[in-house]
Amino acid sequence: MAKADKINFTTPSGFPEFLPGEKRLEVYLLDTIRGVFESYGFTPIETPAVERLEVLQAKGNQGDNIIYGIDPILPPNRQAEKDKAGESGSEARALKFDQTVPLAAYIARNLNNLTFPFARYQMDPVFRGERAKDGRFRQFRQCDIDVIARRELSLLYDAQMPAIISEIFTAIKIGDFVIRINNRKILTGFFQSVGVAEDKIRSCVNIIDNLEKIGETKVKQELDKIGISAEQTQQIIDFIKIDGTVEQILNELKNLTEKMPEAEQFKLGVTELATVISGVRNLGVSENNFCIDLSIARGLNYYTGTVYETTLIGHEALGSICSGGRYEELVGMFLGEKMPGVGISIGLTRLISRLLKAGILDVLPSTPAQVMVVNMQNELMPTYLQVSQQLRQAGINVITSFDQRSLGKQFQLAEKQGISLCVIIGTEEAKTNKAALKDLRNREQIEVTQEELAAQIQKRLS
Amino acid sequence: MAKADKINFTTPSGFPEFLPGEKRLEVYLLDTIRGVFESYGFTPIETPAVERLEVLQAKGNQGDNIIYGIDPILPPNRQAEKDKAGESGSEARALKFDQTVPLAAYIARNLNNLTFPFARYQMDPVFRGERAKDGRFRQFRQCDIDVIARRELSLLYDAQMPAIISEIFTAIKIGDFVIRINNRKILTGFFQSVGVAEDKIRSCVNIIDNLEKIGETKVKQELDKIGISAEQTQQIIDFIKIDGTVEQILNELKNLTEKMPEAEQFKLGVTELATVISGVRNLGVSENNFCIDLSIARGLNYYTGTVYETTLIGHEALGSICSGGRYEELVGMFLGEKMPGVGISIGLTRLISRLLKAGILDVLPSTPAQVMVVNMQNELMPTYLQVSQQLRQAGINVITSFDQRSLGKQFQLAEKQGISLCVIIGTEEAKTNKAALKDLRNREQIEVTQEELAAQIQKRLS
Repeated sequence: MAKADKINFTTPSGFPEFLPGEKRLEVYLLDTIRGVFESYGFTPIETPAVERLEVLQAKGNQGDNIIYGIDPILPPNRQAEKDKAGESGSEARALKFDQTVPLAAYIARNLNNLTFPFARYQMDPVFRGERAKDGRFRQFRQCDIDVIARRELSLLYDAQMPAIISEIFTAIKIGDFVIRINNRKILTGFFQSVGVAEDKIRSCVNIIDNLEKIGETKVKQELDKIGISAEQTQQIIDFIKIDGTVEQILNELKNLTEKMPEAEQFKLGVTELATVISGVRNLGVSENNFCIDLSIARGLNYYTGTVYETTLIGHEALGSICSGGRYEELVGMFLGEKMPGVGISIGLTRLISRLLKAGILDVLPSTPAQVMVVNMQNELMPTYLQVSQQLRQAGINVITSFDQRSLGKQFQLAEKQGISLCVIIGTEEAKTNKAALKDLRNREQIEVTQEELAAQIQKRLS
Repeated sequence: MAKADKINFTTPSGFPEFLPGEKRLEVYLLDTIRGVFESYGFTPIETPAVERLEVLQAKGNQGDNIIYGIDPILPPNRQAEKDKAGESGSEARALKFDQTVPLAAYIARNLNNLTFPFARYQMDPVFRGERAKDGRFRQFRQCDIDVIARRELSLLYDAQMPAIISEIFTAIKIGDFVIRINNRKILTGFFQSVGVAEDKIRSCVNIIDNLEKIGETKVKQELDKIGISAEQTQQIIDFIKIDGTVEQILNELKNLTEKMPEAEQFKLGVTELATVISGVRNLGVSENNFCIDLSIARGLNYYTGTVYETTLIGHEALGSICSGGRYEELVGMFLGEKMPGVGISIGLTRLISRLLKAGILDVLPSTPAQVMVVNMQNELMPTYLQVSQQLRQAGINVITSFDQRSLGKQFQLAEKQGISLCVIIGTEEAKTNKAALKDLRNREQIEVTQEELAAQIQKRLS
């Protein structure tokens, strides 16, 4: 056949794709994450990849992000009917760049068909014009959960988040991690109490948020730039560096509230944090897996209470692998309603790519098949097909080898795909309803009846 | 909070979204379909939503489809740096409109990292400028499988397809269905044998493909229009209407091959069909679930052998719910290589929407939670949290009720979401490590120890 000439068939820059073993790893992680989300009653939703541009840009939502508008391209033979296509004249549309704005739109669209508190998860891809040089992708998957209430939202929802994070990262076995918990009200309350002007508090939060990235000296310079005095800066730095066990920090915070009886915001933050920590403990999260870190600020402006970041111990350079927090004025934006919520997000695509590179995770075998039924001779194919079906009915994933090649070649093909077990049936075995089961890992081979085959395979797979 | 004014936050036309119960149905169907695909060794891949336009349009691939180009939209504060965004000057890109062209590109891109025969499935969304009035969507999910070989591809892969279709539709319990199998070579061979000119054969196939939609009279008119004689037309109509059991039709076809010794193409088609049918039987597909239908043509030009359509009995108006076939010159298009393949596709989004409308499927409960641990008094919250965790560890999905409301209100909230079991622990139960388990379906309530709770719940859920 003629080759399609000169076509650049590579993926567009920033839109990578996975090989089967990588995609299978992603599927496994998505399944695991989903299982934990669902065990806490989070329900799946999916919003369209495409939203009206005015929705994506509402209230400055676009932020610093480059987003992708979409425009219909008619096929060559239909250029004439542009007006009939039902596409021209339609509003500007673009690909969603996160799950938050679409969640707000989803709630506005379906308000009367949802039950509150509404606990949902969402794991579909989002699109952003990220610069490839930053090792970021232009299409990537975020695994987000949020619980949204119409009036009050219990702080115990905040406490569930570290339990969920902890279960997920324990299940996927990526080593030791610590969930660092803080409360924005503590930070902003402290800034107020040392005399930072209201209009500078947001900037202060953003500067503090960069502490790990830019270091203490730079933070001091930045604070100085926006007019925070050297004394205030020192107080802030001393405060966010308060270290110790959860108990020690909570005690220190309680002592501070007594010293600052007028710092209402600060006091409220400390009470909230103590409530969340108590919930986290009642939910059985291991003391090794969480801490209080008063330097955690989260740059995003919408957080108003609890904030989280998660650090993989020994791989701090990866940055936070799961973050989130509580907000008040985010998902009600299209309704003009205050809807408190708390949520976390795992940037799965980026995380997989970094964990693979760091050697913390490994790809899966390139096929889900666990067994290959080899082809000894075409005449026995009816037996091979029947035995394959019998194994599938027992829940085993099977490839039947249809091509007649040497046994060695067939074993090679199995091994190349990560299949370790082969079922071999020759004329003799077929006559006596038997089969040989070969384990390619140790080259051991046993003879079993076809009836026992599934059980023998399951034993070796477990 | 201020309402974002005058923003039209509805979904763009043709881009629908699901309520939680509908999305959960989709997730369940995707899981079921994936399970069957994987049991035959198909491995998942996902290609980017965005491809280079030249890839999507290569060799007339775009066909009649309106596709969506993407264009970067810079945020207001970054308009100045257009040139630095790494986006301007990049090639034209568009959203993929099917999984076939991307599969061809994927194979070309990853040729040396794939094992052949390459059996893959793909279930991510595709985008097409369909007219909303046709009840079609502009973003929808297709579940596709294909097996691709670099040289020969055994006909037994064709035989596996009806086994897979049959397992899927049996598992999702949508009633009786029949997979109608044919072979393009039989059709084209027969057209040749009655003297249809080579350059009219493709048109003949396309007209025949519309038989069910437009009826026999219209088919005759269409054939007449392209210059097929009345006698030829009658022969064709008589042929494609051959009816009977699989055996009867195979016998009739074999008789015809003897009467037409020169019809090589026809003969080859009959042999292929017989081989496929024999494989389908060896794979244990119920005789009720497949038939030979010589009128099945599949409009798509690339099919060269086996073709399939699937009809839901009693709901014929739905059209084919799973179709596919064998092709030779499709996925090797970017490599200039002949790569035989066989595949099927389930248009899942459309199917769900139609099956829901027809009352064949029903939505799932709006939450995956199976149990609600109610809040009798806030002081017992530590117990509620611990019991909830204990149930989750036993694999049960749990919502803990954090708000203190009347028991009746809490039961209502559970029922509204489709949760039928509630765990009730008051002061007395807490003291004695007991719990009441209430079944909201029959209002029965039993008292059990907290230790027995998980087992008692599992018994009621199964």
